[in-house]
Amino acid sequence: MSIVVVGSVALDSVETPYGKVQNALGGSATYFSVSASFFTNDVKLVAVVGEDFPQEHLDFLNSRGIDLEGLERVEGKTFHWSGRYGASLSGAETLATELNVFEKFSPKVPDNYKNSEYVFLANINPELQMDVLGQVRNSKLVACDTMNLWIAERRDHLMETLKHVDILIINDAEARQLSGEQQVNMSARKILEYGPSRVIIKKGEHGAMTLTNTSYFSSPAYPLKLVFDPTGAGDTFAGGFMGYLASTDDISEQNIRKAIVYGTVMASFDVEDFSLNRQRILTREEIETRFAEVKAITEF
Amino acid sequence: MSIVVVGSVALDSVETPYGKVQNALGGSATYFSVSASFFTNDVKLVAVVGEDFPQEHLDFLNSRGIDLEGLERVEGKTFHWSGRYGASLSGAETLATELNVFEKFSPKVPDNYKNSEYVFLANINPELQMDVLGQVRNSKLVACDTMNLWIAERRDHLMETLKHVDILIINDAEARQLSGEQQVNMSARKILEYGPSRVIIKKGEHGAMTLTNTSYFSSPAYPLKLVFDPTGAGDTFAGGFMGYLASTDDISEQNIRKAIVYGTVMASFDVEDFSLNRQRILTREEIETRFAEVKAITEF
Repeated sequence: MSIVVVGSVALDSVETPYGKVQNALGGSATYFSVSASFFTNDVKLVAVVGEDFPQEHLDFLNSRGIDLEGLERVEGKTFHWSGRYGASLSGAETLATELNVFEKFSPKVPDNYKNSEYVFLANINPELQMDVLGQVRNSKLVACDTMNLWIAERRDHLMETLKHVDILIINDAEARQLSGEQQVNMSARKILEYGPSRVIIKKGEHGAMTLTNTSYFSSPAYPLKLVFDPTGAGDTFAGGFMGYLASTDDISEQNIRKAIVYGTVMASFDVEDFSLNRQRILTREEIETRFAEVKAITEF
Repeated sequence: MSIVVVGSVALDSVETPYGKVQNALGGSATYFSVSASFFTNDVKLVAVVGEDFPQEHLDFLNSRGIDLEGLERVEGKTFHWSGRYGASLSGAETLATELNVFEKFSPKVPDNYKNSEYVFLANINPELQMDVLGQVRNSKLVACDTMNLWIAERRDHLMETLKHVDILIINDAEARQLSGEQQVNMSARKILEYGPSRVIIKKGEHGAMTLTNTSYFSSPAYPLKLVFDPTGAGDTFAGGFMGYLASTDDISEQNIRKAIVYGTVMASFDVEDFSLNRQRILTREEIETRFAEVKAITEF
């Protein structure tokens, strides 16, 4: 089955306690689609870049088999994000957000994307998320992400989007902000009332949890010795999750649990290096090894 | 096998967003021993109370089969702690600590406690923890807890204690403070260098993790709808953990994992009500039901 993802393709400048990188490949749709590409060769990307976007990054995305028909290239500069992580690596301080060509982004879903069964609305303005939903016509599973900005400043639009998605995938801080509940489980239950039939909450080093009205699942994070740079971990998680689901075309509770573990495994690779550097040399065998390790560390 | 626990028996005044309670039964050794008593009828308590300590609390501890020979009753008032929890229920603000008779506590281990195989040094001054270790002579497994005060102000003594214990059981904030490492896994690895062969880190709503130099295990918290009052959760966890180990007398990795899940299950009951109110009506059947539920929510 194929997946459509709409989100950002960006150049990131990131500083962590372990080093820094400038204008590296980033963006939610990038992390998502590269991660999903380890599971399915039918990932279709909708995003926009500027004239400065390096050919080598397009080559990399092409090499991962990602369909770039929906990647517009327009006059101007590519979206650029600068951030810094402190010693806990738990949250970034944004130093600069230069929207550039992303400011006037109006997602156009190419005709041959429109029948995709799996749709991921990465973290963009919820009005654009709804716009994309209006352009697809055969979706089996729609998941979306969001962020503190939209929760605070586009809440009405976000609540409208939530009525139309099956799964909301957010982190614990966003879940607290969106629901007004301080405890993770209570926040997830509250969000179910907003529309999604499933909520997945990413908890960084504490792993991920998901619930519906009738099920609950908890996955640990893969036990890394060191988190080097968390940028993209959430989108990489979502990409592994959706990629595995699309490749198996099975959205049963049991398979969704496996997909969540694949998501945490993919995120564990992402955070080992800046940008998508780790993904460039990643193999499916390494993924399977960590999947088995997560099983081993949770068995009792 | 029998367990000796040394720690506090206290009267607590606690306020949470859901209510408050005054001079309720509390204390680390109380929570620990009551929790352990659900697994073994050979729990031996070393602590001190004042003349004001209500007979009904002694009756309750007796009813749980806890050996109180080591519970001194001396002139003065019982240790009293007052604390308040905010909306996140994640950490208490201490309003008052009246040590009272606990100030001059010098633990005396009764002769018929000295051959106990399992020893738990609850959160007391590390010098007293070492003092107790000098009085037992047949221990198979020694675990200890500590707190921010001792880490900051009695660090040398704490480091000495750590050389003599098998397992350190602390929460994530304490692990960060003790190790100087911000990431939980890194903090646990660092602490292994201080002496314990195993570290267990309690992460509240995120569950617990344990590692040795050759193993790693992650347990979720039991998915409660609501945390009502977290007071005593850590000691209740430790009591379930040690109680299950002592009852089975098996300290293999596999059994330690089960013991950790029993610990998280016991903690999940503790936080459902003030003081030890939930424990007063708890049954072994309820414990087994939640143990099975934790298994179910981690399987994939």
